[in-house]
Amino acid sequence: MAATDLPFTRDEYEARLAKVRAAMEKAELKALFITDPSNQAWLTGYDGWSFYVHQGVIVTMHGEPVWWGRRMDTFGALRTVWMQPENIRGYDDSYVQSKTSHPMQDLGRILVDVGASDGRIGVEMDNYYFSARAMHTLHASMPKVQWVDATGAVNRERAVKSAAEIGFMRKAAAISEKMIDGLLERVEPGVPKNEVVAELYRDAIRGVEGAWGDYPAIVPMLPSGIDATAPHLTWDGRPFKTGEATFFEISGCYRRYHAPFCRTLFLGTPPDDMLRAEAALQEGLEAGIDAARAGNRACDVANALYGALKKAGITKDGRCGYAIGLSYPPDWGERTISLRENDETVLEAGMTFHFMPGLWQENWGLEITEPILIRESGPAETFCNRPRKLFVKP
Amino acid sequence: MAATDLPFTRDEYEARLAKVRAAMEKAELKALFITDPSNQAWLTGYDGWSFYVHQGVIVTMHGEPVWWGRRMDTFGALRTVWMQPENIRGYDDSYVQSKTSHPMQDLGRILVDVGASDGRIGVEMDNYYFSARAMHTLHASMPKVQWVDATGAVNRERAVKSAAEIGFMRKAAAISEKMIDGLLERVEPGVPKNEVVAELYRDAIRGVEGAWGDYPAIVPMLPSGIDATAPHLTWDGRPFKTGEATFFEISGCYRRYHAPFCRTLFLGTPPDDMLRAEAALQEGLEAGIDAARAGNRACDVANALYGALKKAGITKDGRCGYAIGLSYPPDWGERTISLRENDETVLEAGMTFHFMPGLWQENWGLEITEPILIRESGPAETFCNRPRKLFVKP
Repeated sequence: MAATDLPFTRDEYEARLAKVRAAMEKAELKALFITDPSNQAWLTGYDGWSFYVHQGVIVTMHGEPVWWGRRMDTFGALRTVWMQPENIRGYDDSYVQSKTSHPMQDLGRILVDVGASDGRIGVEMDNYYFSARAMHTLHASMPKVQWVDATGAVNRERAVKSAAEIGFMRKAAAISEKMIDGLLERVEPGVPKNEVVAELYRDAIRGVEGAWGDYPAIVPMLPSGIDATAPHLTWDGRPFKTGEATFFEISGCYRRYHAPFCRTLFLGTPPDDMLRAEAALQEGLEAGIDAARAGNRACDVANALYGALKKAGITKDGRCGYAIGLSYPPDWGERTISLRENDETVLEAGMTFHFMPGLWQENWGLEITEPILIRESGPAETFCNRPRKLFVKP
Repeated sequence: MAATDLPFTRDEYEARLAKVRAAMEKAELKALFITDPSNQAWLTGYDGWSFYVHQGVIVTMHGEPVWWGRRMDTFGALRTVWMQPENIRGYDDSYVQSKTSHPMQDLGRILVDVGASDGRIGVEMDNYYFSARAMHTLHASMPKVQWVDATGAVNRERAVKSAAEIGFMRKAAAISEKMIDGLLERVEPGVPKNEVVAELYRDAIRGVEGAWGDYPAIVPMLPSGIDATAPHLTWDGRPFKTGEATFFEISGCYRRYHAPFCRTLFLGTPPDDMLRAEAALQEGLEAGIDAARAGNRACDVANALYGALKKAGITKDGRCGYAIGLSYPPDWGERTISLRENDETVLEAGMTFHFMPGLWQENWGLEITEPILIRESGPAETFCNRPRKLFVKP
């Protein structure tokens, strides 16, 4: 019995598998072993918080993919994947965090079973869930295999979203809007930050009409004042203070699909340099969204933004956005296309990005961002619809 | 300027560093590069959701540790670590998710700077945050180094908790109790699961008097009925149903310290086999907690539990617990000592475990667990204090 509550139709999973096999053929891969939880979910439906142990999906050129993991998690696979039970394989608990054995020894045997005992096999060498020891163990136990780095191979096939996926992201975006609305309403001087985050989580998980909230792949980040010069601090129990800006980097999540969205709130009167940056950022976002069209390149979006910022004397380079969609911790990005000067990927309709020009200056941080969808024609659509400004409570 | 709001005293950080250096000396390591975010936080105070890019801490036998990461995250390091700014090093954004360069090329240069260009250097080869590609890149760029697998080396030094750490875990446990109390009160037939999770998160982050809630390293898991035959499913928007058991696996978190805690609730009248399992589990937990004494071994706890279960005709083997404390996603375990038949680690006062004998049977799942503290003498103390039973709402 395959799982009955799959997020997508069987046809959609078949189409995804066909895309991956075409990529494998191009890369001359006999088999692919993927460990990225988002790739596993996208291809098979697998969904569970079990990626803290070794697990993955084996794809060959024929038959169904094979989900492989800790034996106790095969029961979760039975509940969530579309493949038949014989294509769900488990390893013994004695392999878990053992000093004397490694799960990849078991995987080696499964690979032999599916006819992948030699030749070129792709593995995601730069993924959180494929450790140096995993590679070493496979190397040692399967000497006839030529291991090929397939980092991002499946992620890239996820870049253009289906109509159903875009529907999920619209639901996530509606949750993101609700989260930001709640923040802007509740944040006041003297309110402890964790109290506000508690309500934020409540909003995120309650969701909106027609969309229950799933857990986002990144927790809320909302540093204030000088802490906001750093992009990735979370929260504590101290109160919000007058005279400080706080940026809110959050995402709603619906069935693992994300719509990251950021706004900034100043309590008091913002300094002039922040207001000038706001104006430049507004112009830059407008220019970037206008450049985010099918046929243009990822770098065109970045350059449009950086041009507008430069006119205001703000130098920014590096990434100002990344592909988004289905994700598991620790990242809600797809880790493929970046909006930056040297990424010449041609944009296609159905691609989705977090256009994220964070400004972390010497004394403050400012984030005004948009999750966007590349359309068949015209500028990108923003998934969220909220004033694109620095919010101020005097 | 070192960070001003460190969770622990400078003396405590010095003591930790000394323990790590003693372990390095024993392993004849010239340097150690650690990527596990919990090891980074334990040694330096570093705290931020930036572990989705390559980063880590370098320890040599002299001077302060060096925190190394993406340049934008050095600002977060300035806000959170105890070392001087010159010991915070950043790499350029162009290394991030690049097809043409890898951050470990930059790390190689830093290692040379700190005098670690050859000899034995430890790296955490089986950690989420040290990929196969990271190892490969270091191998290629530093041919004179002998890379040694130091997975768990720092984690093991964390096993015995300080009084301050135990204090943090008591706060986390108070939050765990509040979370379970709220679940038992709110879960009713017909209530959508995500609505209950929304309130659960609110409780977790609001915390309790004197303890704001931090994000747990694992999200709540609360499968019902047949889904509870799988240990690691999360939630959706469907309602709770009469005739089903739901187990709740949750943890409060205070400044990254955890106290994982599980209880199970049956809506309706539980089947006889579940009630028999409950009785066996109660006896097994009692026996296990009694065996969890300084001087006994980890396996003694497992064997005491399994003996009691066996008398009731329930065969369970494998792990029934693991070391806990400071953690970051994707795992709230320390990944060192396991409560299982072949782990002969001698228990010491100050060690902390999640004693977690989950029963995932053919038609249902039952989790009644305790976070425990090994004492100087006598049986372990349970951090939480709630009835150790299957809860039932008729």
